[in-house]
Amino acid sequence: MGATIVSDMLTEVLIPVAAAVGIVFALVQWVLVSRVKMSPERHSPSSNNGKNGLSEYLVEEEEGLNDHNVVVKCSEIQSAISEGATSFLFTEYQYVGIFMIAFAILIFLFLGSVEGFSTKSQPCTYDKEKICKPALANAIFSTVSFLLGAVTSLVSGFLGMKIATYANARTTLEARKGVGKAFITAFRSGAVMGFLLAANGLLVLYIAINLFKLYYGDDWEGLFEAITGYGLGGSSMALFGRVGGGIYTKAADVGADLVGKVERNIPEDDPRNPAVIADNVGDNVGDIAGMGSDLFGSYAESSCAALVVASISSFGINQQFTPMCFPLLVSSMGIIVCLITTLFATDFFEIKAVKEIEPALKKQLIISTALMTIGIALIAWLALPPSFTIFNFGVQKTVKNWELFFCVAIGLWAGLVIGFVTEYYTSNAYSPVQDVADSCRTGAATNVIFGLALGYKSVIIPIFAIAVAIFVSFSLAAMYGIAVAALGMLSTIATGLAIDAYGPISDNAGGIAEMAGMSHRIRERTDALDAAGNTTAAIGKGFAIGSAALVSLALFGAFVSRAAISTVDVLTPKVFIGLIVGAMLPYWFSAMTMKSVGSAALKMVEEVRRQFNTIPGLMDGIAKPDYATCVKISTDASIREMIPPGALVMLTPLIVGTLFGVETLSGVLAGALVSGVQVAISASNTGGAWDNAKKYIEAGVSDHARLLGPKGSEAHKAAVIGDTIGDPLKDTSGPSLNILIKLMAVESLVFAPFFATHGGILFKL
Amino acid sequence: MGATIVSDMLTEVLIPVAAAVGIVFALVQWVLVSRVKMSPERHSPSSNNGKNGLSEYLVEEEEGLNDHNVVVKCSEIQSAISEGATSFLFTEYQYVGIFMIAFAILIFLFLGSVEGFSTKSQPCTYDKEKICKPALANAIFSTVSFLLGAVTSLVSGFLGMKIATYANARTTLEARKGVGKAFITAFRSGAVMGFLLAANGLLVLYIAINLFKLYYGDDWEGLFEAITGYGLGGSSMALFGRVGGGIYTKAADVGADLVGKVERNIPEDDPRNPAVIADNVGDNVGDIAGMGSDLFGSYAESSCAALVVASISSFGINQQFTPMCFPLLVSSMGIIVCLITTLFATDFFEIKAVKEIEPALKKQLIISTALMTIGIALIAWLALPPSFTIFNFGVQKTVKNWELFFCVAIGLWAGLVIGFVTEYYTSNAYSPVQDVADSCRTGAATNVIFGLALGYKSVIIPIFAIAVAIFVSFSLAAMYGIAVAALGMLSTIATGLAIDAYGPISDNAGGIAEMAGMSHRIRERTDALDAAGNTTAAIGKGFAIGSAALVSLALFGAFVSRAAISTVDVLTPKVFIGLIVGAMLPYWFSAMTMKSVGSAALKMVEEVRRQFNTIPGLMDGIAKPDYATCVKISTDASIREMIPPGALVMLTPLIVGTLFGVETLSGVLAGALVSGVQVAISASNTGGAWDNAKKYIEAGVSDHARLLGPKGSEAHKAAVIGDTIGDPLKDTSGPSLNILIKLMAVESLVFAPFFATHGGILFKL
Repeated sequence: MGATIVSDMLTEVLIPVAAAVGIVFALVQWVLVSRVKMSPERHSPSSNNGKNGLSEYLVEEEEGLNDHNVVVKCSEIQSAISEGATSFLFTEYQYVGIFMIAFAILIFLFLGSVEGFSTKSQPCTYDKEKICKPALANAIFSTVSFLLGAVTSLVSGFLGMKIATYANARTTLEARKGVGKAFITAFRSGAVMGFLLAANGLLVLYIAINLFKLYYGDDWEGLFEAITGYGLGGSSMALFGRVGGGIYTKAADVGADLVGKVERNIPEDDPRNPAVIADNVGDNVGDIAGMGSDLFGSYAESSCAALVVASISSFGINQQFTPMCFPLLVSSMGIIVCLITTLFATDFFEIKAVKEIEPALKKQLIISTALMTIGIALIAWLALPPSFTIFNFGVQKTVKNWELFFCVAIGLWAGLVIGFVTEYYTSNAYSPVQDVADSCRTGAATNVIFGLALGYKSVIIPIFAIAVAIFVSFSLAAMYGIAVAALGMLSTIATGLAIDAYGPISDNAGGIAEMAGMSHRIRERTDALDAAGNTTAAIGKGFAIGSAALVSLALFGAFVSRAAISTVDVLTPKVFIGLIVGAMLPYWFSAMTMKSVGSAALKMVEEVRRQFNTIPGLMDGIAKPDYATCVKISTDASIREMIPPGALVMLTPLIVGTLFGVETLSGVLAGALVSGVQVAISASNTGGAWDNAKKYIEAGVSDHARLLGPKGSEAHKAAVIGDTIGDPLKDTSGPSLNILIKLMAVESLVFAPFFATHGGILFKL
Repeated sequence: MGATIVSDMLTEVLIPVAAAVGIVFALVQWVLVSRVKMSPERHSPSSNNGKNGLSEYLVEEEEGLNDHNVVVKCSEIQSAISEGATSFLFTEYQYVGIFMIAFAILIFLFLGSVEGFSTKSQPCTYDKEKICKPALANAIFSTVSFLLGAVTSLVSGFLGMKIATYANARTTLEARKGVGKAFITAFRSGAVMGFLLAANGLLVLYIAINLFKLYYGDDWEGLFEAITGYGLGGSSMALFGRVGGGIYTKAADVGADLVGKVERNIPEDDPRNPAVIADNVGDNVGDIAGMGSDLFGSYAESSCAALVVASISSFGINQQFTPMCFPLLVSSMGIIVCLITTLFATDFFEIKAVKEIEPALKKQLIISTALMTIGIALIAWLALPPSFTIFNFGVQKTVKNWELFFCVAIGLWAGLVIGFVTEYYTSNAYSPVQDVADSCRTGAATNVIFGLALGYKSVIIPIFAIAVAIFVSFSLAAMYGIAVAALGMLSTIATGLAIDAYGPISDNAGGIAEMAGMSHRIRERTDALDAAGNTTAAIGKGFAIGSAALVSLALFGAFVSRAAISTVDVLTPKVFIGLIVGAMLPYWFSAMTMKSVGSAALKMVEEVRRQFNTIPGLMDGIAKPDYATCVKISTDASIREMIPPGALVMLTPLIVGTLFGVETLSGVLAGALVSGVQVAISASNTGGAWDNAKKYIEAGVSDHARLLGPKGSEAHKAAVIGDTIGDPLKDTSGPSLNILIKLMAVESLVFAPFFATHGGILFKL
C-alpha cells in the first residue's frame, strides 16, 4: 500500500510542536490583552501609544479616559462577575466530579464484565486469528481515558471562563478609545481560549496515545478502542456544562429582562436590577465555559471516531504510525492555519467603523477555510500513502489519498456553507431578521410566528450541506470519510472558538459599561460588537451542530462495526421503534431544559420583584440590590435541573443497549441524530434572529428600523418578548442538543463490547 | 390454510349494508337537528317538548326564547357564514380541480411508461410464473381510482362544511334552553358528518373494488395495486383542504384577535370586528372541511395499504374474498359500533351541567374502543381462516387469526392512549395547562416558553404508544399487522369525527351568540362547549397523527416490497442522506405554512385597522364593517399560499424517486415519518394548551384562575398572545404534517412501478 513522505519520527515531533506553538500563541495574546490596565493610575492616553503595533489614528474618539472612578467601578464589577463565575463552576464541578467518578466505575464494571474480568488475552474482535489484550485492559484504559477527557474538558471550560472574565472589563475600557480597539481586545481574548483549547485537546490526546502504546504495543485495535473513552469523557462533561450553564445564564437573563425591561422600563444591564450580576456571570459559565467544553468534546470525539475506524483499516493492521495519526496531523495543521488567520484580524487589517465588524469576522471564516484547504492537501499528500484500505462494515475498501483529501475538504467547506447560511438567517443586515422585526408592528404574536418560521426555514440549506458532505465522504471512504469530514469541519476550531468567545465577552463588556454608568456612545460601541457577536454565536452553534451530525454518524458507524451488526434495516421492528423513539428524545430533552429555564426564571422574577418592592430607594439608585440572592437562585436551579436531562442522555444508551440490544440502539442513535439536528438548528437560529431583530429596532440604523423603534415603542416591546423566548432556545436547549446526539453515539461505542456480549436482555428472554 | 365461517356471498352483502346503515343513521341525526327551527314564529317552548326523547327538566334556565329578533339575527349570520364557506370551497375546488386533472394525467403517463404503454399482458411482479394485466391497465385504473378518491374527499369535506354551517346557529338557539340541549345539537351534527364520511368512504371503495374486479378477474395483485390510487386521491385533496383551509381560518382568526382583542379591547367574535365573519367561515373550511378530507384520506390509505399487502399474501394468491375484505369488514363493524356509541351521548345519558361535557366526550372514546375490541374479535373469528400467510419482504410468514386480532386491537387501544394523553396535556382540568396559565403571571414570554415545553413533553407517551403498537403488530404480522393496526386506530372514525366536528360547531355557535348580541349566560354555555371542543380537537389531531404514523409505515412497507428492495439500510449513504433530508421536510413545510399565516394575518390586521380608522361609528356599533374585504383577503391568501407547500409534498417523492431512486426515497419517507410525527404532535398540543390556558383564565372557575384573570388583565393579555401564536401551529402546520407523512408514502407506493423501472437516473449516470 506504499509508504508516506513524512517519516514516523517526524510525525512524533510535528504534533507536539504544533500544540506547543498554539499554546505559546495563546499566551502571547493573553499578554497583549493584559496590557490594558485595570488600575486607574497608569491610564493616561500616552501609555497606549504604539500598543498592538497600531498607531493612534484608529481611535475615533476618546471618551472619559481619565475618569478614574469609571475604571475602579469596572474593576469592581469585573471582580464580582469573575468571583460569581468561579464560585459557580466550583459548585458545578463538585457535582459533576461525583458523577464523573461514579460513571468511571460504571465503565470499568460494564467493560470489565465482558469477559468476566479475566486477565487472559483473547482473540481480536476483527481478526480472530490474532491475539489481543484482555477485555479487562480495555476496561481499565477506557476508564482512564474517560477521566482524562473529562478533566481536560473541565479545564478547557474553566480556562475559557477565566480568560473571558479577565477580558470583559478590558474590552469596556478599550471601547472608550473606539470600536476598533475594543474589537481587538475582545477578539484576542477569544483567541486565547480558542488556541489553548485546540492545542490542549491535541496534546493530551497525543500523550495519551503514546502512553497507552507502552502497554498495548502492537494491539492498535485495543489501543484506539480504549482511547474512545477520551471522547466520552469530554462530551459528558460538556453536557453538564452546557445544560447547567445554559439554565444558569438564561434563568438570570430571562428573569432580569422580564422585570427590568418589561415591567420597570429600565435598560438592560442596569445596575439597579438585582439579577444583573447573575446575568453577566451566566454569559461566562454558559456561553463561554459550556461552549468551550462542548467544542472540545466535538473535537475529541471526531478524533476518536477517526482513530478507531483507522485502527481496523490498513493503517492499523500494518502499524503505519504516520497515516494512523492523520487526524492529529490535520488538527496540528489547523492550529497553524488559524494562527495565521488570527493575524488578519488583529494585525494585518484594522476595524475603523461599526459596519466593519461583521465583515471582519466573516473574513476570518473564509480565510481560515481557504488556507486550511491547502493545508489539508499538504497533509494528505505528505502523511498518507497514495492508496490504502478502509474498514467498511466487514469489507475493506480501497481509498486514494486525494479521495481522503476531498472528504476532509468537503467537511470543511460544508461548515463554511452552514456558517454563512446561519449568518444570513440571524444577522440583522439581511431580510429574514428584518422581516421578523417588521412583524413586531402587529405585536409579539406575529413576531413569534415569524421567528419560528424563520428557524424552521433556516434548517433547509444546512441539512442539504450536511447531506452532500455525508454522501461524498461516505461514498469515497465509508465511515472513515465521515469521521475525517467532521474533523475537517472542526479543523479551524481555534478560529471558530475565538469568534465564538468574542460574542459573550462583548456582551459582558456592554453590561459592564452600563453598570459603570459609562456614556451612551460607549454603550453603542459595545452594542455593535455584541450584535455581531450574536450572529457569530449563531454561526458557532451552526458549526457545532453540523460537526456533531457528522461526528455522531461516524461514531455510530464505528459502534455498528464494533457491535458486529452489518446492517441497520429500518424495516425491522427492532430498528424502527428505536428510530421513532430516538427521534423523540430531542423533544423530551428540550422539554426538560426549557421548563427548567422557565421555572428558574419565574423564581428569579419573583425575587427581583420582591427586591424592587421591599428595598427602599432601589429604583432611584440610592440603595444597592442584593445580587447574591439572585446568583444563588440561578446556581441552585441549574445544579438541580441539570440532573434529569443529563440522566436522560447518559442512561438512554445504557438502558436501550442492555435491555433491547444493539439493533434498537442503532435505531435510537439514527433517530436522535436526524431529528436532533433539525431541532437544534432551528432553535439556535430562531433565538439568534429574535435577539438581533430586537437589536435592529434598538439601533435604528435604517429608516425602516427607526419606524419600528425607538426603545420602549410597542414594536420594541414585542421584540423584547421574542428575544426572551429565544433565550432558552438558543442558549440552553438548542446547543445542548448537539451534545445529546454526539454523546449517545460515543457512549454506545464505548459500551459496544458490553452490549455485543450481554445486550438485548429483553429480547433474549 | 382453511376456510372462513362467513361466506363470500355474505361478505358481499354485509359491507354495503353496514355502509347503508351508517348513511341512514346520519340522515336521521340530520332530521333531528333540523327540528330546531331557524324561523322565529314556531319557536315556542312547547314545540320542543319530548324532542330527542328528553323531557324538559334538562333545561336549566330558558333565556330569551321569545326574542324574535335574536332568531332572525342568528339566521342572518348563519347564512353569511354558510355563503362565505360555500363560495370559498368552490373557489378552492376550482384550483384543486385543475391540479387533480393535471396530476391524473401525470399518473397515467408515469405508470403507463413503465412498459412503454404496451397493451400486452406481462409476468406478475411477485410471482413471475403467472401472467398479470399490462402496466397500461394499472395506469388507467390507478388514474381512475385516484380521481374517485379525490372526488370522494372533496365531497366529504363539502358535506361536512354544509352540515356544520347548518348546525352552528341551531346550537346557539338551543343554548338558550341550557347547555345540555346545545350539546346534543352540536354533537348530533358532528355525528351526521362522522357517519356520512365513514359510510361513504367504505361504500365507494367497495364499489370500486367490485367494478375493477370485472376487468382484473383473478389478477388481484394488479387490482389492489390500482386501488391504492384511491388513497392517493383522498390524501392529496386533503392536503390542499388542510393547508388552504388552515391558512384561511388562521389568517382571519389571528388578524381578528390582534386588532380586536389586543388593540381595541373588544371581545372575541364581536360583530364590530370586520374579520369576524371570515374567522367563522374559517372554522368551517379549515377545521371541518379540511379535517373531513384529512380523516377520509387516512381511512382510505389505511384500507388501501392493508389491501395491497393482503393481495400478495395467501388471501390474494388463493383468491379468498372474505379474508381479503377483512379491512372493509373491520370498517363496517366500526360503523355499527359507533352507532351504538353515539346513542350513549344523545339518548342514554344526559348532560345537565357544564362540567359533564368533557366526561361525556371522553366516555364516547372509551365506549367505542371497548365495544370495538369485541367487534374486532368477532370479525377476526368469523372472517379470517384460523391460519394464513402474509407477505414479509420476500418471504411468507404464517399468522394466526387471533394474532391479527391483536394487531388491530393494539392499534385501537394505542389510539385511546394517545387520545387520553392529548387530553391530559390540552385540557384545562389538569396541571399542565394550569401551569402554562400560571406562567402568564410573568408575561407572554414565559407563557410561550412553558407552552413550547409542554408541547415537546406531550410527545413522549404517544411516541411510546406508537412504538409499542408498531413493535407488536410488526412482530405478529409484518407490514400487514401495521396496516391493520392503523385501521384499528381509525375503525371508530365515525365517533372520532363526530367529536372532532363538534368543536368547531360549538366555536361557531359561540361566535353567533356574540354577534347576535345574546346574553352573557348563553355565551358562557357556548364557551364551555367550545373549551371541551378545543380538547377534543386536540384529541382528534392526536388520533389523526398516530394513525398517520402507522398508515405511512404500512404504505412505506408496501412501497419497499413493490420497489423490490428488501432492506433499507441506514448505513448506506443513499439511504442516510434520504433519512436526514426527509427529517428536514416537516420543518420546511411548517416554515412555509406558518409564514403564510403570518403574512396573511399581517394583511388582515392592516385591513381591520384601516376599517376601524376610516369607517366612522364602527367602534360604537352604529356603522357596519365591510366583512367581504376580509373574506377576500383570507381567500386570496389561502389559495395563493397553499400551492408552494402542496408542491413540496407532491413533488418530493417524484423528484427523489426519479433522480435518486428507491433507496433514497425510502430514507426520505422514514425520515419524514419519524420527524414529522414529533413536530405534528408537539405543534397541535402546544396550540391546544395555549388556547385552553386562555379559556381557563377567562372562565375563572377556580381560585387560581380568578387570581390570574379577569379578561383584560395582564396575565390574560399574555395568554391571548400565546393563543394567537398557537393558532397556526395547531390548525395549520401541525395537522397538515400528518398528511405530508401519509401522502408522500402513498404517492411513492402508487409510483413505485415507475421508480423501480426508471428511477435513480442520477446514480445510473
